[in-house]
Amino acid sequence: MVLAGLWAFLLCACVLGHPKQTTSGGEDMRNCSVTPPFLPVTAVNTTVRLKDFRQHMETKGLDAYIIPDTDAHMSEYIAEHDERRRWISGFSGSAGNAVVSKMKAALWTDSRYWIQAERQMDCNWELHKEVGTLPMATWILAEIPAGGQIGFDPFLFSIDTWKSLDLHLQGSNRSLVAITDNLVDQVWGTERPSLPSQPIYYLQENFTGSTWQEKVTEIRNQMQTHSNAPTAVLLSALDETAWLFNLRSNDIPYNPFFYSYTLLTNSSIRLFVNASRLSSDVLQYLSSDCTGPMCVQIEDYGRIQESIQKYSVEDVRVWIGTEYTTYGLYGVIPQEKLVEDSYSPVMVAKSVKNRKEQDLLRAAHVRDAVAMIRYLVWLEENVPQGTVDEFSGAEQVNKFRGEEEFSSGPSFETISASGLNAALAHYSPTKEIHRTLSQDEMYLLDSGGQYWDGTTDITRTVHWGIPSSFQKEAYTRVLMGNIDLCRLVFPSSTSGRVVEAFARRALWEAGLNYGHGTGHGIGNFLSVHEWPVGFQSNNIAMAKGMFTSIEPGYYQDGEFGIRIEDVALVVEAQTKYGGSYLAFEVVSLVPYSRNLINTTLLLPEQLEYLNQYYKTIRQKIGPELQQRNLKQEYEWLLKNTEPLIDNSSWVRLPASLTILVATTLALALGQSL
Amino acid sequence: MVLAGLWAFLLCACVLGHPKQTTSGGEDMRNCSVTPPFLPVTAVNTTVRLKDFRQHMETKGLDAYIIPDTDAHMSEYIAEHDERRRWISGFSGSAGNAVVSKMKAALWTDSRYWIQAERQMDCNWELHKEVGTLPMATWILAEIPAGGQIGFDPFLFSIDTWKSLDLHLQGSNRSLVAITDNLVDQVWGTERPSLPSQPIYYLQENFTGSTWQEKVTEIRNQMQTHSNAPTAVLLSALDETAWLFNLRSNDIPYNPFFYSYTLLTNSSIRLFVNASRLSSDVLQYLSSDCTGPMCVQIEDYGRIQESIQKYSVEDVRVWIGTEYTTYGLYGVIPQEKLVEDSYSPVMVAKSVKNRKEQDLLRAAHVRDAVAMIRYLVWLEENVPQGTVDEFSGAEQVNKFRGEEEFSSGPSFETISASGLNAALAHYSPTKEIHRTLSQDEMYLLDSGGQYWDGTTDITRTVHWGIPSSFQKEAYTRVLMGNIDLCRLVFPSSTSGRVVEAFARRALWEAGLNYGHGTGHGIGNFLSVHEWPVGFQSNNIAMAKGMFTSIEPGYYQDGEFGIRIEDVALVVEAQTKYGGSYLAFEVVSLVPYSRNLINTTLLLPEQLEYLNQYYKTIRQKIGPELQQRNLKQEYEWLLKNTEPLIDNSSWVRLPASLTILVATTLALALGQSL
Repeated sequence: MVLAGLWAFLLCACVLGHPKQTTSGGEDMRNCSVTPPFLPVTAVNTTVRLKDFRQHMETKGLDAYIIPDTDAHMSEYIAEHDERRRWISGFSGSAGNAVVSKMKAALWTDSRYWIQAERQMDCNWELHKEVGTLPMATWILAEIPAGGQIGFDPFLFSIDTWKSLDLHLQGSNRSLVAITDNLVDQVWGTERPSLPSQPIYYLQENFTGSTWQEKVTEIRNQMQTHSNAPTAVLLSALDETAWLFNLRSNDIPYNPFFYSYTLLTNSSIRLFVNASRLSSDVLQYLSSDCTGPMCVQIEDYGRIQESIQKYSVEDVRVWIGTEYTTYGLYGVIPQEKLVEDSYSPVMVAKSVKNRKEQDLLRAAHVRDAVAMIRYLVWLEENVPQGTVDEFSGAEQVNKFRGEEEFSSGPSFETISASGLNAALAHYSPTKEIHRTLSQDEMYLLDSGGQYWDGTTDITRTVHWGIPSSFQKEAYTRVLMGNIDLCRLVFPSSTSGRVVEAFARRALWEAGLNYGHGTGHGIGNFLSVHEWPVGFQSNNIAMAKGMFTSIEPGYYQDGEFGIRIEDVALVVEAQTKYGGSYLAFEVVSLVPYSRNLINTTLLLPEQLEYLNQYYKTIRQKIGPELQQRNLKQEYEWLLKNTEPLIDNSSWVRLPASLTILVATTLALALGQSL
Repeated sequence: MVLAGLWAFLLCACVLGHPKQTTSGGEDMRNCSVTPPFLPVTAVNTTVRLKDFRQHMETKGLDAYIIPDTDAHMSEYIAEHDERRRWISGFSGSAGNAVVSKMKAALWTDSRYWIQAERQMDCNWELHKEVGTLPMATWILAEIPAGGQIGFDPFLFSIDTWKSLDLHLQGSNRSLVAITDNLVDQVWGTERPSLPSQPIYYLQENFTGSTWQEKVTEIRNQMQTHSNAPTAVLLSALDETAWLFNLRSNDIPYNPFFYSYTLLTNSSIRLFVNASRLSSDVLQYLSSDCTGPMCVQIEDYGRIQESIQKYSVEDVRVWIGTEYTTYGLYGVIPQEKLVEDSYSPVMVAKSVKNRKEQDLLRAAHVRDAVAMIRYLVWLEENVPQGTVDEFSGAEQVNKFRGEEEFSSGPSFETISASGLNAALAHYSPTKEIHRTLSQDEMYLLDSGGQYWDGTTDITRTVHWGIPSSFQKEAYTRVLMGNIDLCRLVFPSSTSGRVVEAFARRALWEAGLNYGHGTGHGIGNFLSVHEWPVGFQSNNIAMAKGMFTSIEPGYYQDGEFGIRIEDVALVVEAQTKYGGSYLAFEVVSLVPYSRNLINTTLLLPEQLEYLNQYYKTIRQKIGPELQQRNLKQEYEWLLKNTEPLIDNSSWVRLPASLTILVATTLALALGQSL
């Protein structure tokens, strides 16, 4: 899927163009410039909440308080329990930070959410159409008098966010005050959804690449060989702990994670979690009844700060991933006892899938392709009848995925966007607001599934009627970008950042581009956006065994949107002259839209690649469809994987034939080549 | 030219393969493992120097002292006056840092210089085949006991080098001690070459893009609009001051610079230079007899630190470029009075050439092409006679350049390398050690000129006999890389780093690569490596009006080397769908080697580009050769710019003809396509 959440921060500043309103506007949005203000039914009354909140602020001597959009694990998706910014402001979008001062309340969010914010916020709130710490700091400097105290929850701030805000306010005589006891929670009180408490379970052996014991040993080996000799690794991202122990649960939407931390030392393993969620079977699985280096000690989730603080008193060095550890934990470890890397060794180890994990992910993609093909066939049948809308379509594809073996729900909120809605890179339809799919418009579906063996993510863009030549050109250039990156051969340890332009070259050539990233890692029944793999500057270098999405796009504001996304495995490349080179092997196996491809734009090598890909799809998905007796789908597959021929072909002629052909053509055309 | 000096630091760590010895070895290199040690005649006896030096160290209470390879301006080339590391160690290579402790002396340099170091150093010196601050710090930690004091000259350290060393030594109980009075200079004494003192002159108006007054006004405008409101800009790189005032001299080899600093404040202009070098004419040109904001006050070069310190007492903010300002100046300005950017506004303004500067640089490249073509023709005549060697060749090309109008010498030490020597990316022949050019070997010439209107830099690789098919393939793939990057269309403000892989793709595809950067900025009668333009991560984004070299290569260790380098101007691109896009316009106008191009590897678009380039060369250089009556050169030009035809062509057939041709071919081949 196109990058959201944590990714969105990187993305939003550069989204090309702003979304136009997709509904009539006015009536369903607030108007604070009339008296009395007009508020739509969707607006949330925050007057009482803010009054209570400001009383709490006063008690603490604060002039303002910052409410970010994340949780204590810097999660991309958060549980309702953590939706503080939503509760205080009424705004439910996934990205957006708020500041409440004595007199004002302000929200900063990106263009995806401006309309939604106008619908959901009442007139207590200012909307700022910017993101990042600078606009927020600028506002604070303007609104809060010198000497002012700005409160924040250190567990909801990344190290970088804190440093950045602190830098902006430096020398201004306004200070950031860390308040561990979250102020919103105090006001939210009993209304606040409780912490998720479903059982935590372990994965069956056939769904894991290694046992947790093997993983622990591997990480400890890395600790020993690290030049700064860390004595412990602190895991604060939820997927780190889930991956390490092969444990899963259901706390976070779309992600099978559970609230947890891990402190893995050279002589102990401490898992911070709500112990009541662990059955005796799980406790036994974790060897929690012993105290040796391969026994997992269960400590209460809430004790993490205290425990880290205590541990840090000793002669220790704690290895952390600075990209996602919160300032709250970072701040309690003395500087000289920190071993800082962008990503923890668990994050890095997790990104390289071993052979078994690769096979599991490949298998999930085969079943996922079946679900996708069933949906595309279903659309071909039903769209012409005018009975499908964006929302029902999304439900249908989720249904097809749900029927696949090992299915465990969607891996993110399905982006099902018709016509101009697809130009909004992160649009998702709702039951209330959606567009009917039409033969005369393009339709973009960006969706994925969670399966016990793997997480999937794929985007296809289709048109059931006659696309314009510009739509075809744009689609073809996006496809050329996808192909050019997918077929690239590059040296081992190349950073994604230096090769992602191959996905853009064909678009650039015509003066087209897209304003989002080109891809992200993906997990085995973990995150659909799995750090630290991808094509951004803060991703790590590509290595054999990593999986990444490759997803160029093009968005024509107010008209249509195109994205073609596949997941690819990084494999060793065999080159003519050897050397240590890598290449991508695409594991998403769903045909592209033939009627949107202008073959005359494709270079011979791109065409060759495409036909080879179609052959692979037939080989791998064909038998699956036949076996399940999905006849209509099988026929559709055959039709849509027929080799493409350039009907104004590039022909490579052998030297001996050049003159012959030139002569023939000269005769035929009455002119020389 | 391939990146050297400051660039080399980035390069050396990743040079692929190590150079083999190009001479018999043994006899001309030291052997410290025999008794008594064997020293070649080229070795420098440093025993007395080191003894004196250590006495000075003892006086200062130092346990070690670091001697880097640069000057107080972080210059790429340095005057003899600053060759401290050479004097103390005997080693004359351009890159390499030394540390002298009480008992040992050690030098760190990269693979280009290992043989040279073994020839020039005596057995007082250890050679460390590594670069960067970490190996040096590791050595210091091993050799210097806790409590040790390590002296250094803060004016020979960049901010980053200091920070990096300081970090490595942190917590080790060894401290870096800044000693302003350079210790080598004290021992060097009267033997030390004096500061250059030739006159400083100003450029005639027809060789400048703007007057110094216009430039000063522009920089002051930038100071006013900067969010941190700097009150002054401190210029410490020599080309900053030379560019700002349109002044030149002759202090530094290959660079027309003079020892200087500038402190440009919002109300004054202070030029730090040896005043005796300025004629009354120059003083008048600088309006040095008044004191207003557009008058240049001349202060002594040696007073810079004291002056900056004094200025920093007031309520000021000094804007510096942190990439090249020394720790010596950085350290005297209080942190809160610094406005830090990677590059000063002068550095950035200088990188964008206005229309007149562009025309000047283009004109220099036309004359430079004439000199290059004269040389290539001369080689074709003389190499078969066996009378040309690398060194005499280098002298010949310098001679041809010297005969061009406005010539002011070479812009760097000519890389003239035959056969296996060309595999050493920075090889330069000497009068004593060189190889004879042969029809049976490839020859690489990387050279450039200084002209009053512009600086040039071009590399061509040739073969006068029958190259192997691997040599042709490698050459063609390097050329494809050059073409692919040269013909790229990319959005405004794209960083070079994200597009440089286009110069490597064709090589990567076959498992080939090169271990140096892909290009660098270039000046108008300034540096041949002009920061901050280029394709590295610390270069700034591409903008219209910048010039950069584009220089992919391939190096077959022990056999041959290939590099194809052109200088290109960044221009606005006209795309089909508009938008703000950029492209390169190549201004180096010298044909490539036809007998090294395997046209069957080229894609149709690459071939088309190449033939268009040849047409441009004919148009721009042809008349110049004719006008000068250089008949042989003109004929050579025509022969070498004949359109290339792929003798196993890709033919794009119009749709209507596809079937016809297919049928014809089927008939001809007795098989279907």
